[in-house]
Amino acid sequence: MHNLRIAVVLGTNRNGRTGPTVTRWFLDRAGTHPGMDLDVLDVADLPGGDGHGSPSATFSSRIDAADGFVVVTPEYNHGYPGPLKSAIDSARREWFAKPVAFVSYGGMSGGLRAVEQLRPVFAELRTVTVRETVSFHNAHTLFGPDGEIGADPSSAEAAVRTMLDELHWWGWALREARQRRAYPGLSGS
Amino acid sequence: MHNLRIAVVLGTNRNGRTGPTVTRWFLDRAGTHPGMDLDVLDVADLPGGDGHGSPSATFSSRIDAADGFVVVTPEYNHGYPGPLKSAIDSARREWFAKPVAFVSYGGMSGGLRAVEQLRPVFAELRTVTVRETVSFHNAHTLFGPDGEIGADPSSAEAAVRTMLDELHWWGWALREARQRRAYPGLSGS
Amino acid sequence: MHNLRIAVVLGTNRNGRTGPTVTRWFLDRAGTHPGMDLDVLDVADLPGGDGHGSPSATFSSRIDAADGFVVVTPEYNHGYPGPLKSAIDSARREWFAKPVAFVSYGGMSGGLRAVEQLRPVFAELRTVTVRETVSFHNAHTLFGPDGEIGADPSSAEAAVRTMLDELHWWGWALREARQRRAYPGLSGS
Amino acid sequence: MHNLRIAVVLGTNRNGRTGPTVTRWFLDRAGTHPGMDLDVLDVADLPGGDGHGSPSATFSSRIDAADGFVVVTPEYNHGYPGPLKSAIDSARREWFAKPVAFVSYGGMSGGLRAVEQLRPVFAELRTVTVRETVSFHNAHTLFGPDGEIGADPSSAEAAVRTMLDELHWWGWALREARQRRAYPGLSGS
Repeated sequence: MHNLRIAVVLGTNRNGRTGPTVTRWFLDRAGTHPGMDLDVLDVADLPGGDGHGSPSATFSSRIDAADGFVVVTPEYNHGYPGPLKSAIDSARREWFAKPVAFVSYGGMSGGLRAVEQLRPVFAELRTVTVRETVSFHNAHTLFGPDGEIGADPSSAEAAVRTMLDELHWWGWALREARQRRAYPGLSGS
Repeated sequence: MHNLRIAVVLGTNRNGRTGPTVTRWFLDRAGTHPGMDLDVLDVADLPGGDGHGSPSATFSSRIDAADGFVVVTPEYNHGYPGPLKSAIDSARREWFAKPVAFVSYGGMSGGLRAVEQLRPVFAELRTVTVRETVSFHNAHTLFGPDGEIGADPSSAEAAVRTMLDELHWWGWALREARQRRAYPGLSGS
Repeated sequence: MHNLRIAVVLGTNRNGRTGPTVTRWFLDRAGTHPGMDLDVLDVADLPGGDGHGSPSATFSSRIDAADGFVVVTPEYNHGYPGPLKSAIDSARREWFAKPVAFVSYGGMSGGLRAVEQLRPVFAELRTVTVRETVSFHNAHTLFGPDGEIGADPSSAEAAVRTMLDELHWWGWALREARQRRAYPGLSGS
Repeated sequence: MHNLRIAVVLGTNRNGRTGPTVTRWFLDRAGTHPGMDLDVLDVADLPGGDGHGSPSATFSSRIDAADGFVVVTPEYNHGYPGPLKSAIDSARREWFAKPVAFVSYGGMSGGLRAVEQLRPVFAELRTVTVRETVSFHNAHTLFGPDGEIGADPSSAEAAVRTMLDELHWWGWALREARQRRAYPGLSGS
């Protein structure tokens, strides 16, 4: 029984300070979670496209190879960043019948409004979005210059474990189900 | 191998003409779909509550007994009807780790905006919402006085079959997974 | 020049502890804001209806008499409470061309996801929803038994003033505009 | 009394067939609407940016010069296209206290789900989103090779007039209000 393969999709702006800090902090914790192999995909590495189905064979094949996903996203004006959406839209069947979890960050809302807008997007892509999220409120003041959470990090670390445990349950449920029966959405349009 | 047990939750206004017509039309088709036993729950039968956790032991136990759901909803002002939301909120763990599909109706939008608002609600309830929907656009003129679709009903009937086939896949995937491993959301809060 | 008339619509559950506490705290602050007369409408006082256009002449006429609104809402399963939605749906033209502001409360999200779902609902009702909100995160632990915020309340009080100032600007803008030109949505359907 | 200045923001993919056809059809009708001067901004002309505040002085200054907006958008996976979102996010105060209307296109939904996701985005930008929309359902089969609507275009043309009339009402209401009182969001953060 192999590990689950989880693709972490980074929707953050690489030029800011908060996004890369949140990403590093999360990847450090997720990397030690048992039973998962991580593949990290940075949206900023993708070629600019037309926002719909632009060819990015590498991105699609890595989405295809994964059993589940963690999407790391900031919240811009209550929604998701444009480049993240273009990346999501550039694949299609590769997402089907797999679970998607979220790490979000923002100000007062902790990025949760971006997550809410992504849930129906991923419903169209025939995924299940996991209830448990990791959200960083007022992220720009939460992390110190050393990239660590200044206050007690234990509740954030517990949130990571809870989210990955739920992703793990869905990941195995759907990997086994896909092997047992062809997914109907994959034989039609 | 028993049939899947599907609870159909009627969120429609029983006093109108369109809601009951859509409901009857859908139940006639769904009743003959192979591999499913239907249980029909009418939100209008529920006692009025405070909108959150009001005790309705019967509703909860019938949600608990089901392997999956079809929610029939109109669209009121781009959202879901209040009584439907109160019913959904009155259960909690009974929904977990099961699939939810939608039949919607409305004017120009076919009720699809109500469905979009229900997807994040059901994500909090740890369900998966099925991509395929059955939607009736301009429903008040679509059905004749005999309760049948005036024009060719074949595309609507195909939409019912496609949606139920997808619900069936998710229903079995999750029924088997729940038997194999305890769902993590059910051992915590 | 008369004061603006602001209707405060209470969507909270009167049987809980948090909702009434949040409501009292807000009404105490709003009552002293200059240039506004408040009318308080409690959704729990409305007769249970069918969730769409149920006759409640009193509610509609008080919505009609107002120049603007503050909606106080909890978040239930990422959405708005059923009884609040039924109340909103029970009026129509009475809302048109007026501003709506929000006071929300909840756990991690501060009720902000309920606000996001209400914005498109109020767009259909031809209102403008004000950007500035007052949101209480982890509201059940924020207020002491005396109904006051345990920690420093100054940022919450500043949020009330900022939100009411913005509501005031929109309230006057639209009151004057309605007097100057007939709103097109009021001469059509 | 000068005409209202309306900026039409094209969020469509210039390489497809449907987007440019919808755009041309709409601009032909809007160009003859009385009392408005149109400025057309194509998102595809913007430099690729990081999706948040990327400098595009020309775009911002043209948004700033406008009294109101029409956003033309397809629906990709129930949401808005990435490049459109990046363009919206690249301006801020230039949007404040102005109305935004929508022309959308898509399959079964007519693009209306993309519009729903844009409404809260534009609420953060302190705009009002106009209720009346122009939506093209099954847009890829609706228009003939000559770029005209094959069937009777009168209801689509009426929808354009109704939407622009409502935009016109809000455009004048807010232009006059901004001149009369400073918008509070413009003196703070």
